[in-house]
Amino acid sequence: MSDPTAPSPVQARPADFWRRADGSVEAITRDLADETAIGLSYDSRPYVVVMGTGADVEDLAVGFTVTERIAAYADIARVTVSAAKQGLLADVLLIPAAGRALNLARRRTLEARSSCGLCGVESLGEAVRPIAMVGQGPQVTREAIQAALAGLEAGQILGRRTRATHAAAWADRSGAVILVREDVGRHNALDKLIGAALRAGLDPSNAFILVTSRLSYEMVDKTAAAGVAILAAVSAPTALAIRQARDAGMTLIALARDDGHAVFTGPERIVERIVGRLAAP
Amino acid sequence: MSDPTAPSPVQARPADFWRRADGSVEAITRDLADETAIGLSYDSRPYVVVMGTGADVEDLAVGFTVTERIAAYADIARVTVSAAKQGLLADVLLIPAAGRALNLARRRTLEARSSCGLCGVESLGEAVRPIAMVGQGPQVTREAIQAALAGLEAGQILGRRTRATHAAAWADRSGAVILVREDVGRHNALDKLIGAALRAGLDPSNAFILVTSRLSYEMVDKTAAAGVAILAAVSAPTALAIRQARDAGMTLIALARDDGHAVFTGPERIVERIVGRLAAP
Repeated sequence: MSDPTAPSPVQARPADFWRRADGSVEAITRDLADETAIGLSYDSRPYVVVMGTGADVEDLAVGFTVTERIAAYADIARVTVSAAKQGLLADVLLIPAAGRALNLARRRTLEARSSCGLCGVESLGEAVRPIAMVGQGPQVTREAIQAALAGLEAGQILGRRTRATHAAAWADRSGAVILVREDVGRHNALDKLIGAALRAGLDPSNAFILVTSRLSYEMVDKTAAAGVAILAAVSAPTALAIRQARDAGMTLIALARDDGHAVFTGPERIVERIVGRLAAP
Repeated sequence: MSDPTAPSPVQARPADFWRRADGSVEAITRDLADETAIGLSYDSRPYVVVMGTGADVEDLAVGFTVTERIAAYADIARVTVSAAKQGLLADVLLIPAAGRALNLARRRTLEARSSCGLCGVESLGEAVRPIAMVGQGPQVTREAIQAALAGLEAGQILGRRTRATHAAAWADRSGAVILVREDVGRHNALDKLIGAALRAGLDPSNAFILVTSRLSYEMVDKTAAAGVAILAAVSAPTALAIRQARDAGMTLIALARDDGHAVFTGPERIVERIVGRLAAP
């Protein structure tokens, strides 16, 4: 596998277009994020195709495997990435015992579009799966969250060029951003981040995650599967995401901006300067 | 079926949380968008589960059926929506001949998360499908695009309350917004809009669509499937979306803001005040 702490190759290509304003027309060149079909297979058996940014594909394969509960990180023997005519292929070789235990009874062969993590169940009851309880996790200060937010912003190499990608950052309890991953799909960005952190041997019990995107149910689900107890987002959460975070014992922070943030669940992990004891909602 | 031109029921619920800034903590109540499992079936056979906003479910079922090329609008006999314990169910009854022709050889049973249109193929080659060519479509002025943009903004009832939803608008060539649909998922918002327009008998050859979200490949694909020749977005497109739009003969407008917009493909449909002839990129 390649070095998970190395910066991502930039996946942007210039495009010519016309900017129109006030009746005038101006020719402009701008960098665009690309979107590539990425096929994941397990022991050479096709499993899913996602549409995403064609960088950090090993991280994506590792992260998807863990957050979709296909296998634990320790069960992954090797990831092999190859280029194909119509996209990229990542084959995950599992250690033999894990291969046998693979959650392929619920086999999911499907295409996932750029913002889709997902897929393959037939019934409503399977759609929202029981969430994993997170551990105690770290306590962090407001300043650490704000510092990590600045680190997430600084780490968006592709985002600054294209304004078309999501990003996810892995921060330690002091708010120092250790890793950033980007993708046109928000689920992919999070899977890449979690995969990169696992490959770099980072400790989820002492970290928190920040994402640029909205918090849907699945972002909470993937973070819980990674064993990270605090998830912060620049955008807003859905009501279901909040219910799931509460069930998981997770701290959910959203609307994180330069001037503050909102705490939807688990305020006990945010320490310092909280005056008095806030009642649970 | 219910009236497709009626406004959407608002799907927002209040939540209590804590706003933290500069060391102070303030209790706040805010409306959140909900996220619900919505199961679609054809002739009572389960087909897909999407995570989305539980409003305009008939529109979603009709739009998904057409944009995923499962059947034409004329092949839909009836949509029946019912509430289940774990979400909502929409059954699409097809006219018998259409039922037989149903594209279920490539049967896709899967769960689609909130921002996922999607799904069910095994190979990279199937992931990006051949796009439909659009017809001549309307010609529109810059002013019509700006007017529709204002209409899209005004129509975001749920978005204004929650800041967590995407919206899609159907505009006539003058820029008047006829319909707006919202969803936590951008693909769902577009499918709902297209379904509502079909149900209301609106003419796709004389309309254009605006969306708040980024333009991934699939947004272009769904718009082409609906026969709409102009797609405009507030956010940026991916490189693949632009290639697909060019292949479809579609006009792709993005980065649409109060002060202007960018035209990535098909500038010939935007008329008035263009000085001289722009060369194709």
